[in-house]
Amino acid sequence: MTAFTAQTDDYEQRVRDSLARQNALTLMGAKLLRVLPGQVELDLAHDDRLTQQHGFIHAGITTTLLDSACGYAAFSLMPADAGVLTVELKTSLLAPADGERFVFEGRVLKAGRTLSFCEGRGYAIKQGQEKLIATMSATMMTVTGRSAVQG
Amino acid sequence: MTAFTAQTDDYEQRVRDSLARQNALTLMGAKLLRVLPGQVELDLAHDDRLTQQHGFIHAGITTTLLDSACGYAAFSLMPADAGVLTVELKTSLLAPADGERFVFEGRVLKAGRTLSFCEGRGYAIKQGQEKLIATMSATMMTVTGRSAVQG
Amino acid sequence: MTAFTAQTDDYEQRVRDSLARQNALTLMGAKLLRVLPGQVELDLAHDDRLTQQHGFIHAGITTTLLDSACGYAAFSLMPADAGVLTVELKTSLLAPADGERFVFEGRVLKAGRTLSFCEGRGYAIKQGQEKLIATMSATMMTVTGRSAVQG
Amino acid sequence: MTAFTAQTDDYEQRVRDSLARQNALTLMGAKLLRVLPGQVELDLAHDDRLTQQHGFIHAGITTTLLDSACGYAAFSLMPADAGVLTVELKTSLLAPADGERFVFEGRVLKAGRTLSFCEGRGYAIKQGQEKLIATMSATMMTVTGRSAVQG
Repeated sequence: MTAFTAQTDDYEQRVRDSLARQNALTLMGAKLLRVLPGQVELDLAHDDRLTQQHGFIHAGITTTLLDSACGYAAFSLMPADAGVLTVELKTSLLAPADGERFVFEGRVLKAGRTLSFCEGRGYAIKQGQEKLIATMSATMMTVTGRSAVQG
Repeated sequence: MTAFTAQTDDYEQRVRDSLARQNALTLMGAKLLRVLPGQVELDLAHDDRLTQQHGFIHAGITTTLLDSACGYAAFSLMPADAGVLTVELKTSLLAPADGERFVFEGRVLKAGRTLSFCEGRGYAIKQGQEKLIATMSATMMTVTGRSAVQG
Repeated sequence: MTAFTAQTDDYEQRVRDSLARQNALTLMGAKLLRVLPGQVELDLAHDDRLTQQHGFIHAGITTTLLDSACGYAAFSLMPADAGVLTVELKTSLLAPADGERFVFEGRVLKAGRTLSFCEGRGYAIKQGQEKLIATMSATMMTVTGRSAVQG
Repeated sequence: MTAFTAQTDDYEQRVRDSLARQNALTLMGAKLLRVLPGQVELDLAHDDRLTQQHGFIHAGITTTLLDSACGYAAFSLMPADAGVLTVELKTSLLAPADGERFVFEGRVLKAGRTLSFCEGRGYAIKQGQEKLIATMSATMMTVTGRSAVQG
C-alpha cells in the first residue's frame, strides 16, 4: 500500500467529529475502531433490527458501513475546509453477512484534488473465525466552498 | 421495457411477506408502494435518524432501499420455492438525497434462471418537485434448495 | 428522459472530430450513428478479430464501445475548451455478444460542472432481431486547463 | 491473500489454450506473464492503435485486459469441463494509461460453485516507474453443459 500523509494535524478528530454527526451510523450502532491517514475501520455488532428476510445483515447496511469507512478514509486526507460526498460505490457480496460482529475497512488507493478512489473490505466474525463477506470500490469527491457540505 | 410474466399467481403477496421480514426496512420506515411482475416501488419519508453528516439521507440508506426494490423486482419473477440474494450492486449518487419523501424503483432488465440483472432509480420529492438523485445497477441470484435462504 | 441543451453550436462536429482521433475505435471498425445533446449511438459489425474464446465479441470490446458512447454523450454537453475522461464504468453482460451487428447507446442522466453521470445500452442484431446484451453505468469528468486532455 | 488450490493439474495449460483463442487479446498484442491458481498477469506494450483521443490507452482496452486477467484467474480454479463468462465488471480509472508498458493482474477473492468474485489491478510502467492506473471489481460465472461455452 502507498502510505499517505494527512494535510491536517487533527485529521483523526475531524473524522470522529464528522462521523458522530452521521445519525444513520449511530442508529445502526457502528463504532469507529481506527483512523490512519487514508484508512478507517468501523465495527458493527449483529443486531436483529438490521437484517434482511433471511436474518443476515442487509446488503444495504453492509454498504452503509463500507461507504462510511471509505468516505472517511478519503476525508482524512482532505484539507481542513473540505466536505466529502460519495460519487458512486459498488458492493460485491461474497457471502451472507452472518456473524456476531463485523469489521469494515476503507482505504484510499488514490487521493486526487477533486476525486479519491477507495476500496473497502467487510469481514464477519463468527465463533472466532473471520471471513471476508463484502468488498467495495468507491469514488469520493472533495467539496469546498459549499456551506451545506462541510465535514 | 420488456413486459415480464410472473411464474406464481401470488407474486405480490410473496413480495409483501418477504419484505415484512426485512427488519432493516421496517427500522427505516420504508413502505411498499407497488409490485408488478419484475418491478417494485418503495417509499421513504425523510427521517433525521437516517442522515449522514450534512443532513441528507445517507448513501447507504439510499442503497438499502434501491437494493430491496431491485431484489424484490427479481424475486417477483422467481419460482415459489426460491430465495433471492444480492450478488453485487452499484449506486451512483447524482445529487444529495435532500427531500421530504423519496421513491425508489427497481426493475428487472433480464431474468435468467440463476441470475437476474436489475436497475433502480431513486427520486427525492421536495416542495412538489421530483428529482432523480440515484441510480442502481445490480445482479440478483435465485437460490433454491437452501433452507436458510427462502423468500 | 430529461432533454439537454448543448453549450456549443458545433457539438456534433466536436464529437465527430474527437472520435476520429480514438484509434482504438478505428481499429475495431466502430461507426458513429447519431449525436444529440447528451446522447450518442455507435455501430459495430461482428468481426472475428474482436472475439473472446467462445467466438462472441469480447466483454472488453463491448465496454470500449459503451464507454465511448457514454463519454461522447457527456462531451457533447461540455464547454468548447473541455476534454472528457472516464472516472469509472460498470458493464453488466446480460447475454453473450452474439450477432451480425451491434448498436451501443450512451446517454447523460445528469451533467454536472465537474462530473457527468451516464448510462449505456448495448444491443445485438441477429437475423433481424434486436436483443439487449449489455448495460453500462459510468461517471465522466470534465477536464479543463490541461493541454494534454483536450477533446 | 487466501491461497487457492486448482481442481485440475493442467490449469496453466488450459488458461494458455483458452487465452490463445481470444482474438481480441491477440489483436491488442497482449502477452501472458504468469498463471497461478486464482491469479493471472498479462502484459501489454503501448501501441498507438489502442489509444483514445488524447493518446492514452483507451479505458476500454484497459478493461479488456483486466477482464481477461480476472476471467482467467477464475477459470484457473474451475473444473475441467467448465467455461467462464463475465457477469459484470467495474473499472476505476485512477490515472490516464500513459506508459511504455502495462501490467494487468487478476485475482480471485472468492471462488464459488457458480460465481467467482475477482479483483484486478492495472499498472503503467514509464521510464522505470510503476504506477497504479486502474482497478477492477468483477463477477465471473462458471458455465457447464453448454457446448458453445467451453474454456
